[in-house]
Amino acid sequence: MLHLNLFIFGCGHHRAAWRHQASAAERLGDIGYYEELARVAERGKLDAIFFADGASVSHIEDGPRWYLEPLTMLAAISRATERIGLISTVSSTFYTPFHAARLVASLDHISGGRMGWNVVTSMFDAEARNHGYEAMPPHAWRYGRAEEFIDVVLRLWDSWADDALLLDRAQGIYGAADRIRPIHHHGDHFLVDGPLTVPRPPQGHPVLFQAGASAEGRDLAARRAEAIYAVAYDLPAAQSYYRDIKRRVREAGRTDPVPIMPGLVAYVGSTEAEARAKQRELDELLPQEASLRQLGMYVEQDCMGWEMDAPVPPLPPLSAFQGPKGRYATILRIIEAEQPTVRQLLGRLAAGGGHCTMVGTPEQIADQMEYWVHHEGADGFNLMPPTLPGGIEDFVDHVVPVLQQRGLFRKEYETDTLRGHLGLHRPPGR
Amino acid sequence: MLHLNLFIFGCGHHRAAWRHQASAAERLGDIGYYEELARVAERGKLDAIFFADGASVSHIEDGPRWYLEPLTMLAAISRATERIGLISTVSSTFYTPFHAARLVASLDHISGGRMGWNVVTSMFDAEARNHGYEAMPPHAWRYGRAEEFIDVVLRLWDSWADDALLLDRAQGIYGAADRIRPIHHHGDHFLVDGPLTVPRPPQGHPVLFQAGASAEGRDLAARRAEAIYAVAYDLPAAQSYYRDIKRRVREAGRTDPVPIMPGLVAYVGSTEAEARAKQRELDELLPQEASLRQLGMYVEQDCMGWEMDAPVPPLPPLSAFQGPKGRYATILRIIEAEQPTVRQLLGRLAAGGGHCTMVGTPEQIADQMEYWVHHEGADGFNLMPPTLPGGIEDFVDHVVPVLQQRGLFRKEYETDTLRGHLGLHRPPGR
Repeated sequence: MLHLNLFIFGCGHHRAAWRHQASAAERLGDIGYYEELARVAERGKLDAIFFADGASVSHIEDGPRWYLEPLTMLAAISRATERIGLISTVSSTFYTPFHAARLVASLDHISGGRMGWNVVTSMFDAEARNHGYEAMPPHAWRYGRAEEFIDVVLRLWDSWADDALLLDRAQGIYGAADRIRPIHHHGDHFLVDGPLTVPRPPQGHPVLFQAGASAEGRDLAARRAEAIYAVAYDLPAAQSYYRDIKRRVREAGRTDPVPIMPGLVAYVGSTEAEARAKQRELDELLPQEASLRQLGMYVEQDCMGWEMDAPVPPLPPLSAFQGPKGRYATILRIIEAEQPTVRQLLGRLAAGGGHCTMVGTPEQIADQMEYWVHHEGADGFNLMPPTLPGGIEDFVDHVVPVLQQRGLFRKEYETDTLRGHLGLHRPPGR
Repeated sequence: MLHLNLFIFGCGHHRAAWRHQASAAERLGDIGYYEELARVAERGKLDAIFFADGASVSHIEDGPRWYLEPLTMLAAISRATERIGLISTVSSTFYTPFHAARLVASLDHISGGRMGWNVVTSMFDAEARNHGYEAMPPHAWRYGRAEEFIDVVLRLWDSWADDALLLDRAQGIYGAADRIRPIHHHGDHFLVDGPLTVPRPPQGHPVLFQAGASAEGRDLAARRAEAIYAVAYDLPAAQSYYRDIKRRVREAGRTDPVPIMPGLVAYVGSTEAEARAKQRELDELLPQEASLRQLGMYVEQDCMGWEMDAPVPPLPPLSAFQGPKGRYATILRIIEAEQPTVRQLLGRLAAGGGHCTMVGTPEQIADQMEYWVHHEGADGFNLMPPTLPGGIEDFVDHVVPVLQQRGLFRKEYETDTLRGHLGLHRPPGR
């Protein structure tokens, strides 16, 4: 049984999606748009919807690089849906644990036990400078803070016993004072006395997601995360990450499943040609000059004269490249595996970046997903449709039924909570 | 034309309301309960609903002293209502201006321009110790921070021009980079570069409420608030506050209306006797021992032996009282004006504390409200029903129609925004 999230982002994960005539570019400030997307995902019995987050905005000329605040969006969306999980990114570098614990706990009450939180440590100086830092604090400091942050949040959620409220009208005793306890946390990063101001969440703990790529991130994920988002360009990359994380989880002495969900950009067509035409239609909407300029930054050479519909010119090997290696390695792999034209390469980079892309019929895509799940590549996928709402409608209406017929995906929700959908136990109160 | 807010709090503002058989004590974690209250208020064409907030919990045995987080509640409630304003308390001592600006701006988008924020500086050490302070910072420091906080939030909202988004699909130009500007704030309390990550709110600025009682609070309110919550036990107290604030507003060079809304606890009955019976029924639910112990703290003497249904024994004059004078003065005024029994005094203190209480028929209550509004006591009221939902249903179904017949209150919403309901102009972009 695999797990599926819908990662909701603007008009879709392809950078030019907003330019499509059918895009919802006018509706990105309209909560009704996001509610509709969530309902499509719920129609497909997906485990959850997911919002990324960021605290800075740039290059607004190129496309929608802003978000409504995800926690408030999910509160609204929770009332337009019934069963689907709701996951928000929360930055441990910018939030305080008391605010985060309280907001997410309230959302777990509001949604009836459907909340998840994806802890990130944030990245950009521009974000740090909106939150009192002169620049982004060092990586190790952020991860130290993240670990303490998670610890405090979990203890705040446990500061109320599940049975703290008595509601004894006759005796006039509303709650049991000895079942609501302070936590008296005084650590390197935080001073938090507790208790929380909200009863223990319906799920005990809303589900903790993480997406660690660095060694520190993987360690934190292995020790703390209950489910993991991953970035994997192809199956070998997915397997390498998957096996490494599962090993670290075991070494941390954990027996819970910790499902791993790589991002997936899927172009679905009734024929492979139709799927490829959809992809090409979007790629042709990419602004040529800006895309070539950005590619030039990735590969550290001038690409402005490259012919869009010719094959990508030869690039130096990874060992000879002086810049950031992660994205460059992905570019080399795309070129090696797909021999793309320049336009196709730009399109691949413009939709999900280094995430896996599948293009084809519902059966072809289901075949690949099944293969990944059966070969230690994934326990499920974080769907990053190139367009919205079209891309998720295609997936829900055509790929999900194939997965269901194969017994790989639920036909109906079997539980009411995100924890239940993911097969995770409810943590007992302390 | 007067203004009316519904101040939603637990099972109602009477401390024993949760013990009433009809109370919603079981539903305080159920967002559906708050949605229903908001819909009752909207049926009455009220300007807004309002949530207080706090960051600590205590004396849980006595009653519901906890809240779901108000911003997430209001996001959900916005989707269950259409026109009514939505006001949340936001602590400038515990939030950062970037988070606050973003959450409230998002809610203004989600609600279609119906948000207000009530800025408070918070009070209790127990709250401070959940947010990294050893104790509550000094009053003057908190007010300095509040003023800078408000300034940064307003500038963040103005960091996007109203017409920043172009959505030019053909040219591939999504937004105008020169219409989204950083604010480069570097003050005593905050470093915030901006711009915000959310387009300018539909209202330009969500409406700024404040409730200043101290000299610093009144000054801040006069300079910054667009509407004001007040505490006034009786008309003379209301007039004194009203005239002082209006003078300060004029002296600050402002010409906007700045409506002042004292809290109002109303017991409504079809006869005066029925209204008094409702009040007495609640007062009789007060736990005797705990209430007398608390009264003992207010008046600084042992009250445990006081007879509940006898008149309040004589108390020393204000000049001879050594403890905190505000609440003691209110107690002396209640005794002087109403000659209450001990139980009645406890009941008055248990419902809204020092706020105005009106008990009677819809006409009697409308008479008093009209008198206050016509005699510089109020521009409207912040309704604090002793019970919920009963207290607001009584008010909406019986008092509001009388106010409407007298031409004192709208019969239909005339605008779609909180700013519109309050007669406030939309601030132009900078």
